[in-house]
Amino acid sequence: MILLDGKKIAADIRAELKSEVEGLLSAGKRAPRLGIVIVGHNPASETYVANKMKACAEVGIEARKIALDETITEQELLGQIDILNHDASVDGFIVQLPLPAHITEQHILSAIDYRKDVDGLTPENVGRTVQGQPSIVSATPRGIRELLARYNIATEGRHVVVVGRSNIVGKPVAMLLMQRPYLSLPGLSSSALGDATVTICHSKTCNLGDICRTADIIIVAAGCPGLLTADMVRDGATVIDVGITRVEDPTAPKGYRLSGDVDFEHVAPKCAYITPVPGGVGPMTIVSLLQNTLQAYKHE
Amino acid sequence: MILLDGKKIAADIRAELKSEVEGLLSAGKRAPRLGIVIVGHNPASETYVANKMKACAEVGIEARKIALDETITEQELLGQIDILNHDASVDGFIVQLPLPAHITEQHILSAIDYRKDVDGLTPENVGRTVQGQPSIVSATPRGIRELLARYNIATEGRHVVVVGRSNIVGKPVAMLLMQRPYLSLPGLSSSALGDATVTICHSKTCNLGDICRTADIIIVAAGCPGLLTADMVRDGATVIDVGITRVEDPTAPKGYRLSGDVDFEHVAPKCAYITPVPGGVGPMTIVSLLQNTLQAYKHE
Repeated sequence: MILLDGKKIAADIRAELKSEVEGLLSAGKRAPRLGIVIVGHNPASETYVANKMKACAEVGIEARKIALDETITEQELLGQIDILNHDASVDGFIVQLPLPAHITEQHILSAIDYRKDVDGLTPENVGRTVQGQPSIVSATPRGIRELLARYNIATEGRHVVVVGRSNIVGKPVAMLLMQRPYLSLPGLSSSALGDATVTICHSKTCNLGDICRTADIIIVAAGCPGLLTADMVRDGATVIDVGITRVEDPTAPKGYRLSGDVDFEHVAPKCAYITPVPGGVGPMTIVSLLQNTLQAYKHE
Repeated sequence: MILLDGKKIAADIRAELKSEVEGLLSAGKRAPRLGIVIVGHNPASETYVANKMKACAEVGIEARKIALDETITEQELLGQIDILNHDASVDGFIVQLPLPAHITEQHILSAIDYRKDVDGLTPENVGRTVQGQPSIVSATPRGIRELLARYNIATEGRHVVVVGRSNIVGKPVAMLLMQRPYLSLPGLSSSALGDATVTICHSKTCNLGDICRTADIIIVAAGCPGLLTADMVRDGATVIDVGITRVEDPTAPKGYRLSGDVDFEHVAPKCAYITPVPGGVGPMTIVSLLQNTLQAYKHE
């Protein structure tokens, strides 16, 4: 069993990105620029934004935080999006979620110019990904593809079972791994992944165990701690655990521990490859945002 | 075994649409209007366009044909698209494919305002479908969903296997049947379909037979005559055959016959429901275009 070390791979990619940005600067070009819109003062959001800004700084991407009052109206926020869409000095930008309840997130996300949509959440980017056109892929699916690629885990003709049908993970990762591999697709490192036979399971799936047992690769993104148990995994499978949930644990120093969707202790011994939680998919997510920003900068 | 009679269902829907349009007119409203752009004189395209105009006339939709010379440049065609996007008297429009080789189809399709994209082929509409937002769904997937709905074939928790990953059938129908059922989704008749466990297979799938044998519903859209054989289908399955290929047949009056992707003779006796070819999915396709036009008219 080999651990898919997302922490190490993410560090490798950050080093590569740093070197690429340095190359741009020494060629007399400007640094890539990322806008980060945050509305209000949600503490978790502020932590996420701080982490993203730190990651940008580390590789030489200039991050600009646009902090807006939580009383902003949807119309005013759309105005800010429009300004960023037309600001040639910003290569890409994200809107930190969640937004205050009086704003409809989908209205805001849909207003972002897809060429600057480095979170890859606009319908235009999702549709382009589905159609196999050049697109900006959302962070977690991109990170999963990258992790598989860096460990040379082939997907062609393999049966990938995705558990979970969220807009940010389940659906896009299924579409990504099912595609014909587009060798010219920008930002695809190492080998071109795709051509998998993909099954998407979810809360209404009747026979989840039976289906998972037929899988070569299982991607679990359901947000249910311990959902994938050892009896659902065949020997030699690869397991990618996207779940990360706080579970109460009186023995832990903070009173809780982070749990993935996989019963790691019993599943891991059966696997060819498996991601730990934390340290697997998680660290790949921020690094994907950096890669997407560079992709938008290069207009790829 | 029950034949899914697309010809009859399509006639039923046309009658319903006719009555709805008559209702609009007697309420003093104008008729819905569809623009049909055709470039050059491809005989097959001209036949398709003539059939679409006839279907529109039958239900009271005003179709306007915009016939353009095959020497038109991509830029000029984009100009025409822009005019149609902004023409408030046109509710929806389609660009008949294929386009001449000097024009990149994707550039043209991507330029269509998604609210008028009654073929449902713009990335924006595809992305909205994937994300479960209100969208215009392309004709064949919409027709398949309608056919299942009209025969009360439930999809919740059932295993649907889609064979083929085209942008116009395989990928969108998979996304459509996998979604949570959006009861408020416009244009969804009878019952709300969705919530299926979906597997997408294609030319790189290794064990197609094994996978199809686990399916409750098989949708074959591969364009390979006779691909689905009886040994690949379990008793009581529902089979939807999207393929329609001309196969040489010296005994046929025209020297060819139309063949689906299913070995109908041997598969049909095992099925609970099966579509014939022709007369199954085919007739649903044009009627979906009419439904989409009415949807665009109503801004749903």
